[in-house]
Amino acid sequence: MNNFIYETPTKVYFGKGEELKVGKLVAEFNPNKVLIHYGSQSAKKSGLLDRVRKCLEEENISYVELGGVVANPELSLVREGIALCQKENVDFVLAVGGGSVMDSAKDIANGAANPDMDVWDFSLKKAVPEKTLNKGAILTLAAAGSEMSNSCVITNSETGEKMGYGCSCNRMNFAIENPELTYTVNAYQTACGAVDIAMHTIERYFCPGEDTYLTDAVAEAVIKSTMKAGMDCIKNPDDYEARANMMWASSLAHNGLTQCGRSFLLAVHQFEHVVSGMYPKIAHGAGLAALWCSWARYVYKANISRWLQYASNVWNLDIDFEHPEVTIEKAIDMQEQYYIDLGMPTCLQELDVREDDLEEMAIRCSQNKTRVLDGYKKLGYEDMLAIYNMAYRT
Amino acid sequence: MNNFIYETPTKVYFGKGEELKVGKLVAEFNPNKVLIHYGSQSAKKSGLLDRVRKCLEEENISYVELGGVVANPELSLVREGIALCQKENVDFVLAVGGGSVMDSAKDIANGAANPDMDVWDFSLKKAVPEKTLNKGAILTLAAAGSEMSNSCVITNSETGEKMGYGCSCNRMNFAIENPELTYTVNAYQTACGAVDIAMHTIERYFCPGEDTYLTDAVAEAVIKSTMKAGMDCIKNPDDYEARANMMWASSLAHNGLTQCGRSFLLAVHQFEHVVSGMYPKIAHGAGLAALWCSWARYVYKANISRWLQYASNVWNLDIDFEHPEVTIEKAIDMQEQYYIDLGMPTCLQELDVREDDLEEMAIRCSQNKTRVLDGYKKLGYEDMLAIYNMAYRT
Repeated sequence: MNNFIYETPTKVYFGKGEELKVGKLVAEFNPNKVLIHYGSQSAKKSGLLDRVRKCLEEENISYVELGGVVANPELSLVREGIALCQKENVDFVLAVGGGSVMDSAKDIANGAANPDMDVWDFSLKKAVPEKTLNKGAILTLAAAGSEMSNSCVITNSETGEKMGYGCSCNRMNFAIENPELTYTVNAYQTACGAVDIAMHTIERYFCPGEDTYLTDAVAEAVIKSTMKAGMDCIKNPDDYEARANMMWASSLAHNGLTQCGRSFLLAVHQFEHVVSGMYPKIAHGAGLAALWCSWARYVYKANISRWLQYASNVWNLDIDFEHPEVTIEKAIDMQEQYYIDLGMPTCLQELDVREDDLEEMAIRCSQNKTRVLDGYKKLGYEDMLAIYNMAYRT
Repeated sequence: MNNFIYETPTKVYFGKGEELKVGKLVAEFNPNKVLIHYGSQSAKKSGLLDRVRKCLEEENISYVELGGVVANPELSLVREGIALCQKENVDFVLAVGGGSVMDSAKDIANGAANPDMDVWDFSLKKAVPEKTLNKGAILTLAAAGSEMSNSCVITNSETGEKMGYGCSCNRMNFAIENPELTYTVNAYQTACGAVDIAMHTIERYFCPGEDTYLTDAVAEAVIKSTMKAGMDCIKNPDDYEARANMMWASSLAHNGLTQCGRSFLLAVHQFEHVVSGMYPKIAHGAGLAALWCSWARYVYKANISRWLQYASNVWNLDIDFEHPEVTIEKAIDMQEQYYIDLGMPTCLQELDVREDDLEEMAIRCSQNKTRVLDGYKKLGYEDMLAIYNMAYRT
């Protein structure tokens, strides 16, 4: 087991009606002014934004608003948010939405608190934010896990780059998670969320590390529960218990719990960020589903015993020790079928990616053939190109 | 799933050599003076205390020391610690030890920060600490989970009362967990630790709640991993991986993770606190092992399906749906055998408890026949007496 640091400072308020606490929770930070940050019109239409405003007003908290966050949140809106915070002397950012809104809010809070640094340098890993504004989230989508994670993923649409960075400043002070707020999430977005949540932990599970059987067992618990909850949510969108298990899984899958004692790199996420960086309309979860099985088939031979454990403990397969590859490939096939059952793509062609772009994807993912992704099987440019090609069609 | 609040602010530094970071970690709080709080001579003999002093001195941090914490930590030493903090203007408490030292440190920090309140009133739940001193821990025993819990259990030896209380002020700012520091823990204390750790989650598992399958699966992961790690530590005390999995389990089992969405009451802990309150030489884990099977046999019929899930998922038993009691009793028998294999008692007689005291125990546990412990089966005075009697001999 590797040494590790475990840090999950975000205080979570989970359950029905919890969003009505937002006024009192923000008031604890005694802010000068709050930025309410949100995405599309749905938070307005549902009446959630009105409830949030009312809660802040009841505590005599002043606020400004910035909406318009899109999937794969854009650097340009982040810069607008930073300027607004500086002009209005905002010292608390409240995200009302899903992962894109939360990541945009994190980047705004980091940029506003560090006026001498350029916010895009955080994404490029040329700089690390030294401080940040206080911030909280009201979750309306169970997917990204950003509510408890130290991660922030921003897209620069001028360059087509989508980059993630992790640091302590990216942790929310609090997160409000009311599963009822996700009843209106449609089947496709729900499926994308289920894929993304489980993937956060599946990817950690296959990072190098030894003798982490507690972490492994917790990870298997999160993966299996997410897969069940995701399918149940699609079958019955108003199933509170399914929505609740899925929402809580989104937080646990990405807050660090499932990587304790193992190394950390989300390889398939790196492949996917390139895809949705170049095709911003592709939902992140759909991109992951389209890529994962090909990645899995390409890498599994580098650690047969780990993959057998996965096949046995996650997919409940009896291990064929004479032909372990058969067991592993069966598990991957089962996961592929699960994605199909969820209504997710299992290849890039289904997402209208052009075959001509695969080479450019491998170049970007390898950062112009300079980056090798670590793992049981290290992946350089040639491997990346092979995986993108495998993933193109089923 | 019930609404819940999840709060685990303690930052954990886990692994080999991590205790050498203590100077820099304490320095981040810029303390006026630190109280180093410890127990027996073992922290001195092992050289750990010297290393801690050196780390603080390298950061020019002044400190005073208070040793002498015993198993079932005493109110009298807490009062001494509070007086010392006030006299020396201490504003940071550093616990070097196991659960007893950490609980004593928490109570001192709470008492010193609230000079207008009486510290024993916190245990009696007549008052709640409004603030606390900053505090950290260097763990030398994997057992109580106090390093991440919001719990503090103190014994008043004048009255024979052992009382626990939970609150946010009881959270450590940081915990340093180096599994190597537990190599010297003997087999009996290691077994007591394994029992206590798993029990923190087993008890939560049987608290009322519905549709918490993610929490359930995580709990099962913690329980099974702890049981394995505990036995492995006894077989080979220098097995780093076993010590590491057990130490990390101690934190996860009691930090709140395994109760999300369920109600919370540690019933068997209530029974045991009375026993070791009256017999302070009884180790807490041993008391729990002596009581649990009798409690289990007494209560399981109140929720057959929950206990079948436990039998299946924790003890890997095939369920006999025609005779579910047979399956459940087999699981309880297996857990009893596990305790025997660990070298733990499975009845109170083995702990030299006098049969004459059982009635007094039931009176104390029921707080003079006024308290009923909540749960799938509610337990009043008569039930408590029946369980103590069942637990007296095997």
